[in-house]
Amino acid sequence: MALTIKDIAKKCGVGVSTVSRALNNHPDINKETREKILKAVEEDGFIPNNSARNLKRTDSKTVAIIVKDIDNPFFATMMRVMEEEIHQEHYTFFIQHVGDKQNEVDAALELVKEKRLRGLIFLGGYFQGQEERLGRIKVPFVVSTAELPDIPDKETCSFITIDNEQESFYMVEHLCKKGHKKIAILAAAKDDCNIGRMRLEGYKRALAEYKIPLHKTLIRHLDKNHAEYSMENGYQLMKELLKEGTTFTAVYAISDLMAIGALRALHEAGRKVPEECAVAGFDGLSYTAYYIPSVTTVVQPVEEMAKESVKSLFQMIESKKGVPGKILPARLAERQSTLGTGPNASGPVPVYNSEVKR
Amino acid sequence: MALTIKDIAKKCGVGVSTVSRALNNHPDINKETREKILKAVEEDGFIPNNSARNLKRTDSKTVAIIVKDIDNPFFATMMRVMEEEIHQEHYTFFIQHVGDKQNEVDAALELVKEKRLRGLIFLGGYFQGQEERLGRIKVPFVVSTAELPDIPDKETCSFITIDNEQESFYMVEHLCKKGHKKIAILAAAKDDCNIGRMRLEGYKRALAEYKIPLHKTLIRHLDKNHAEYSMENGYQLMKELLKEGTTFTAVYAISDLMAIGALRALHEAGRKVPEECAVAGFDGLSYTAYYIPSVTTVVQPVEEMAKESVKSLFQMIESKKGVPGKILPARLAERQSTLGTGPNASGPVPVYNSEVKR
Repeated sequence: MALTIKDIAKKCGVGVSTVSRALNNHPDINKETREKILKAVEEDGFIPNNSARNLKRTDSKTVAIIVKDIDNPFFATMMRVMEEEIHQEHYTFFIQHVGDKQNEVDAALELVKEKRLRGLIFLGGYFQGQEERLGRIKVPFVVSTAELPDIPDKETCSFITIDNEQESFYMVEHLCKKGHKKIAILAAAKDDCNIGRMRLEGYKRALAEYKIPLHKTLIRHLDKNHAEYSMENGYQLMKELLKEGTTFTAVYAISDLMAIGALRALHEAGRKVPEECAVAGFDGLSYTAYYIPSVTTVVQPVEEMAKESVKSLFQMIESKKGVPGKILPARLAERQSTLGTGPNASGPVPVYNSEVKR
Repeated sequence: MALTIKDIAKKCGVGVSTVSRALNNHPDINKETREKILKAVEEDGFIPNNSARNLKRTDSKTVAIIVKDIDNPFFATMMRVMEEEIHQEHYTFFIQHVGDKQNEVDAALELVKEKRLRGLIFLGGYFQGQEERLGRIKVPFVVSTAELPDIPDKETCSFITIDNEQESFYMVEHLCKKGHKKIAILAAAKDDCNIGRMRLEGYKRALAEYKIPLHKTLIRHLDKNHAEYSMENGYQLMKELLKEGTTFTAVYAISDLMAIGALRALHEAGRKVPEECAVAGFDGLSYTAYYIPSVTTVVQPVEEMAKESVKSLFQMIESKKGVPGKILPARLAERQSTLGTGPNASGPVPVYNSEVKR
């Protein structure tokens, strides 16, 4: 059984506020009383620190992060940054992983009931069509790296994301400007209605704007039963495309992990990157800067997204009012995998990569 | 406020056990009563599923994973596997991340008090000298990927790890057998007393066994203020070694991430791998199979370690008895980064890599 502040107060023959002062290192307390309380606490194995207040459970200062894809290195970095920010607010937090077959909103509803949370951050996930149940989440929440539909019955919710369609457009435009006309895309599953679809839309719009006809054979979709944006899946899609013998001079993968898989498949087929084929990714994983060749990618503002997510959440916890969603800009990092490629290229491919030398 | 089973029972004018039967879909209940209870539950927004039982908080079936380094892709895979295993036991779980400056045992003691857990898994961390406080953790726990010292006052604790010294020995032996005599090691900080030290000891023992003198300049330690086994740190150590101009024909990094950083630094210096230098890592991250060249490494049995950790934990929860620690074998995966290197090499370096074609 956990000790409550009341138990300690009773044991030491003092008031609850005195125990609270002792636990919080408040100067306004008799030294002997303080020592007596800390000794009592020590004997029962209770650790007096920031989370002491949590013992009085209705005052628990805890938030949770609900993460859909814990394997994703992109999310790992975000969780680390979020942790730092949440600790600065003197809150405790924990991470709840939601499996493939679980619904993230169900998980949230349960958590709020069980753990008496002050707020939630969804890291990834899919929210279209779940408006009614999202409205039943009693605490403020922020959706991070995805957009949130309008929720009629809920004010204290917000989101932080990038413009996936527009950033994808910029990447494909980058390839078009180099003169590439046969640009393959390694895309999400055909029925995807999430960021995968938006990145594909950006690809289509860029080709249209540069008057490049759309080749259906160059649009490679993930299998809907194995729809992870993984190295393995990028590798397999690339293998299939190579096997078919369709001509292409550039490959755009909608995730960095898929781009790395594609690079490996091209290497095994003896196709030199960037000399014989340009490759571009999306996300800005740190691996892409260390790969050989280093990979051109859309760098998502990971730190800023994590910080803004926490900031919006605490704004809502404190003000009990909604905060507008934010769309942050990403950055195109041109690296070796597209350098000097295409008919409009000039000069040799440099080996050095300023991205690594931070 | 969360509804308790009592509240629902009162509202419906039935006993607590009847509510429990309704929530658990038990056949032994009147259909109308069941519908009445589920309707009451629905009206108050309570989700009737596996975790319904958790409402009666003393019966909460929850375990926690305390993870020291959430950025580590090795741990991410383990968490995913652990999640699957824990759900099979019909337990809920959450992940608690412990920051660089936090102590993992303190975090555990707090969690157990606050959350009424049934058990804990430590993923990584450092436990020497913390025996007394570890003994105060009231629930069973398993230390995963590290060894646990003897804890006099605690029976229900266990560990799962590999033999870091021996596996490291095998990797360096692999390089020695190829005839390499100048083998640099990218090692942990000088004052490390954890797996970093054990991997270094394996290196030293292999050199001694193969009668290769130890060159101090070839032992490169991480800075103790930036001691993460990261790509960035591997890159920096390699840069420094290259700058000094010391001769070496092989580099052994004590982590795959450091090996990838080193490979990038060698590439930028124009040193061809494996032709002019062999490179080996440790851990078996999936990236190593996709890197160009693919990286020879010690593959830790990630899935098995995760499964065994959960198994040992539930054995202890059920039997209330201790379970002996387990040391599992790892596997040396020879890939392109060491193939055909050293004076004893024969034949050309193959491009294909069977590791990827799973």
